[in-house]
Amino acid sequence: MKRIQPKTEQKNTAILLLHCPDKQGLLALVTEFINTNNGNILYLDQHVDREEKLFYMRIEWELEHFVIPKEKIADYFETLIGKKHNMTFHLHFSDVRPRMAIFVSKMSHCLFDLLARYTAGEWNVDIPLIISNHPDMEPVAEGFGIDYHVFPISKNNKAEQEAKELALLKKYKIDFIVLARYMQIISDDFITHFPNRIINIHHSFLPAFVGAKPYHAAHERGVKIIGATSHYVTPELDAGPIIKQEVAHISHKDTVNDLIAKGRDLEKIVLSKAVAKHINRKILVYNNRTVVFS
Amino acid sequence: MKRIQPKTEQKNTAILLLHCPDKQGLLALVTEFINTNNGNILYLDQHVDREEKLFYMRIEWELEHFVIPKEKIADYFETLIGKKHNMTFHLHFSDVRPRMAIFVSKMSHCLFDLLARYTAGEWNVDIPLIISNHPDMEPVAEGFGIDYHVFPISKNNKAEQEAKELALLKKYKIDFIVLARYMQIISDDFITHFPNRIINIHHSFLPAFVGAKPYHAAHERGVKIIGATSHYVTPELDAGPIIKQEVAHISHKDTVNDLIAKGRDLEKIVLSKAVAKHINRKILVYNNRTVVFS
Amino acid sequence: MKRIQPKTEQKNTAILLLHCPDKQGLLALVTEFINTNNGNILYLDQHVDREEKLFYMRIEWELEHFVIPKEKIADYFETLIGKKHNMTFHLHFSDVRPRMAIFVSKMSHCLFDLLARYTAGEWNVDIPLIISNHPDMEPVAEGFGIDYHVFPISKNNKAEQEAKELALLKKYKIDFIVLARYMQIISDDFITHFPNRIINIHHSFLPAFVGAKPYHAAHERGVKIIGATSHYVTPELDAGPIIKQEVAHISHKDTVNDLIAKGRDLEKIVLSKAVAKHINRKILVYNNRTVVFS
Amino acid sequence: MKRIQPKTEQKNTAILLLHCPDKQGLLALVTEFINTNNGNILYLDQHVDREEKLFYMRIEWELEHFVIPKEKIADYFETLIGKKHNMTFHLHFSDVRPRMAIFVSKMSHCLFDLLARYTAGEWNVDIPLIISNHPDMEPVAEGFGIDYHVFPISKNNKAEQEAKELALLKKYKIDFIVLARYMQIISDDFITHFPNRIINIHHSFLPAFVGAKPYHAAHERGVKIIGATSHYVTPELDAGPIIKQEVAHISHKDTVNDLIAKGRDLEKIVLSKAVAKHINRKILVYNNRTVVFS
Repeated sequence: MKRIQPKTEQKNTAILLLHCPDKQGLLALVTEFINTNNGNILYLDQHVDREEKLFYMRIEWELEHFVIPKEKIADYFETLIGKKHNMTFHLHFSDVRPRMAIFVSKMSHCLFDLLARYTAGEWNVDIPLIISNHPDMEPVAEGFGIDYHVFPISKNNKAEQEAKELALLKKYKIDFIVLARYMQIISDDFITHFPNRIINIHHSFLPAFVGAKPYHAAHERGVKIIGATSHYVTPELDAGPIIKQEVAHISHKDTVNDLIAKGRDLEKIVLSKAVAKHINRKILVYNNRTVVFS
Repeated sequence: MKRIQPKTEQKNTAILLLHCPDKQGLLALVTEFINTNNGNILYLDQHVDREEKLFYMRIEWELEHFVIPKEKIADYFETLIGKKHNMTFHLHFSDVRPRMAIFVSKMSHCLFDLLARYTAGEWNVDIPLIISNHPDMEPVAEGFGIDYHVFPISKNNKAEQEAKELALLKKYKIDFIVLARYMQIISDDFITHFPNRIINIHHSFLPAFVGAKPYHAAHERGVKIIGATSHYVTPELDAGPIIKQEVAHISHKDTVNDLIAKGRDLEKIVLSKAVAKHINRKILVYNNRTVVFS
Repeated sequence: MKRIQPKTEQKNTAILLLHCPDKQGLLALVTEFINTNNGNILYLDQHVDREEKLFYMRIEWELEHFVIPKEKIADYFETLIGKKHNMTFHLHFSDVRPRMAIFVSKMSHCLFDLLARYTAGEWNVDIPLIISNHPDMEPVAEGFGIDYHVFPISKNNKAEQEAKELALLKKYKIDFIVLARYMQIISDDFITHFPNRIINIHHSFLPAFVGAKPYHAAHERGVKIIGATSHYVTPELDAGPIIKQEVAHISHKDTVNDLIAKGRDLEKIVLSKAVAKHINRKILVYNNRTVVFS
Repeated sequence: MKRIQPKTEQKNTAILLLHCPDKQGLLALVTEFINTNNGNILYLDQHVDREEKLFYMRIEWELEHFVIPKEKIADYFETLIGKKHNMTFHLHFSDVRPRMAIFVSKMSHCLFDLLARYTAGEWNVDIPLIISNHPDMEPVAEGFGIDYHVFPISKNNKAEQEAKELALLKKYKIDFIVLARYMQIISDDFITHFPNRIINIHHSFLPAFVGAKPYHAAHERGVKIIGATSHYVTPELDAGPIIKQEVAHISHKDTVNDLIAKGRDLEKIVLSKAVAKHINRKILVYNNRTVVFS
């Protein structure tokens, strides 16, 4: 299926995400750096965590009249401001489309939602690759015209298969991975290749009901609300930094199958919202928590 | 794209939807009729509107050991109970899959959501036909393997084109129509062919912001919540019986384009929830309002 | 403060709550019992748990023309229907106002919400008694004209103080207890005197964050939604049958104190909704879960 | 009733709310002004409306080491920055408690919610006065120890009574007014004395169902969600700048009385949230819309 409305307007902006120990005047310092060099600020949001005494900031500006050449901005910023204030920062450019891979197993709802948005041109991203441990979703990948590779996983071949997956991800120049209800645990080693760049959807309101079969557990416990949680994957299962959560009301009338059905709508929306935030470089991770800018 | 998980289990049940003037004993009467004739009741819900003094009921039972033959149930029920109590009723059988047509214009989000659910086997429905006033969505229809017909509409050709559409709907034996952000007003005459069988999604929290450009109107008014409304189409624009509504919080930071983007998620979920209720014969319409059974 | 609008209209109805092993015809049986004896059914809702094969029902009817005298209904029902079908049932009369005690510590928000509704005549209940382990809320009790007794609790005097509380509850003829952010764990022995008749509000979305300081735990985990849970108290801490849950969205900007403040609104509304359901005999408990009728 | 927990910590800060035509460098300018003069910024949020080309900002800083004396800050800011950039600004000090009056008629739920928060010390505000057109709420006012004045309003005496109310508000040095379900239309003349300083709660999701009896209208229309809207009062009825909105799901089972009951919880929470934002000087009004800072 060809992309029907690939109409995302191409901005020419720089996006700076940073955090550092808080002190007076940081905000003025950064905005001055951009103003002085003729950058027109389009977006600014900052957050001060007063308990941890940390300063977080996201700033985006137009590059058209900016006097520092694109390829030197990071260097200049580090030299003039970053080093002195102990800043950790990431610089992105809006004309660089991140490349995303999807991992999927047998369920289609999250996959369809991601591909529909991609096809409709909602996101400034490229999706050249889908990886699965099962062949079931191949027709969907084909329908949308995206490469599909199957790596069946067993206890014995996991390390080996993951090595092949990593090679493939490298070949496709993948920047980040979305687990669209991928029913395999990713190894710690694999995760180190994509730190804070693997987004998972867990089908419960974490930290309630970690692990497998959360809808069964929710039904058993008799809760009145179910949820879904998108988070970055870290070695500890279902314990990574939370990006987005949503919930739905249920009642005694809902069977486990009803929860699963209602959960599907939560899962796909919550996952897609997290992916959109990631694509737009709106997420900062620190201390296993996220700052999600508006 | 072939349907990947066409696994909806096939039940063999009858579903009776009825309403009538309320009086004592109606519930016992209907349940007795089914019990006596060896029908195992799987679902029962009823509602009494005490202001209007109306009784509404939905009841579903297994046909396996039911002594009245399928094709005679309606007749027997009318004779033995319905006529006496002035009941309006509809009898459905779960093994009859309703046939649904989708009308679409240029936006893909609702269309994708409907087709993804269909392809995944979430719904007990057939979707053999998509009609549009534009060619834009043809690749999507093709990807999902569904017939796509284009009827461009202008002021002058509307009656003529609608006649052709009606002929096509007849040819495809369509039971009900879903307007998936179809940007044309359906004529009164057309509506009479599908009374309470055309489901529309309006991109506002009706009755706020009827008509075109509701997100612009919402932004102009400075509301803090936007919504979407699925409803049956009636001759009066945006005034038909409401099936489902959902909302999302917004803030002063949201531009009209942000509202449109946030609205897409509401629209597709609200429309699909309404369609699911319709497919499962869970909706009763009376006095321009709906009773939506659980 | 005198009750300003004690205008709850006094209905003369019977309310039957029952559950039993499911079988065909139970619903018809019960409705016939009431119809035959000239009871006008005002409300009926039933639920079948198909996994556990259990039938749950709530039915309410007018007593005015009911031929069985009030004091004999339970006996007749048990003899004619209940025993045969192994029913567990409770019969209530709407003209019997339940008597409620509130347990409170130092926080006022839930207490105020309960007393405001009581004073406004929202509920068909009497609240003659407030018990606390601290004197702080005495002025509130006085302002609303309700007796206030203080029982300071320490490790050594708990059993003794609870005995005094039980004596007081007996003296005041209390039917059920509401823990309005009461910061003491109730002993197992105490609970046995009020099975499924002590309602607690826990300030988290259970089962996430059981125990003390859930808002601190939620902040530490970096969740994006907080919740509150009302439930019946059972010996296992925070594990009793859940009645009602609500949530609120939060962000990285919210400090622990912000969570506490946002949580207060959730807690008071969720607790009051649970209390209203209990007062109206809308809750059935089975297998540590609730059926909450509409 | 004495205030039980009057524990709001007293900050010594200045709060600046401003808006002006947008241009490059405004943010750096204002933060520099504060930094240079030794003010420690505790809060900063800004918003740029790119359609209207307007810049909005809220900034709060500690006064302890600020070199400009409190009483001269406004003057200095106007001279050095405000005039040049055409800024409209308001300067507040956190140690000045605003004085609030409540207008009420016969319903108690919003009144109780406001007074409970006040008594619990949730808000940095003084509430010395309640005005009503009916005597019904006098016991509540008395219970909470607040002066209560009754001004019965008829067609003929409105102007006269409002004049008396204005005199009383002046005598009590009232800064802003909260209409806690006050069932009288405020005259245009009265409003001019408190521009953007009268907060109303409307019992619908505006702009749906303006005017009287919105719950009846919602029931009649068959909506599936009801709402409540807090807004500043302007001469055009129910059309003032919206501060906060919330909604609740309803179904065909809900009668008008059910909507009224469910609506009460919405109304009191939405009104109190708006009042809290106003007390904390978090609201900017421009073009009949609000910017509500976090």
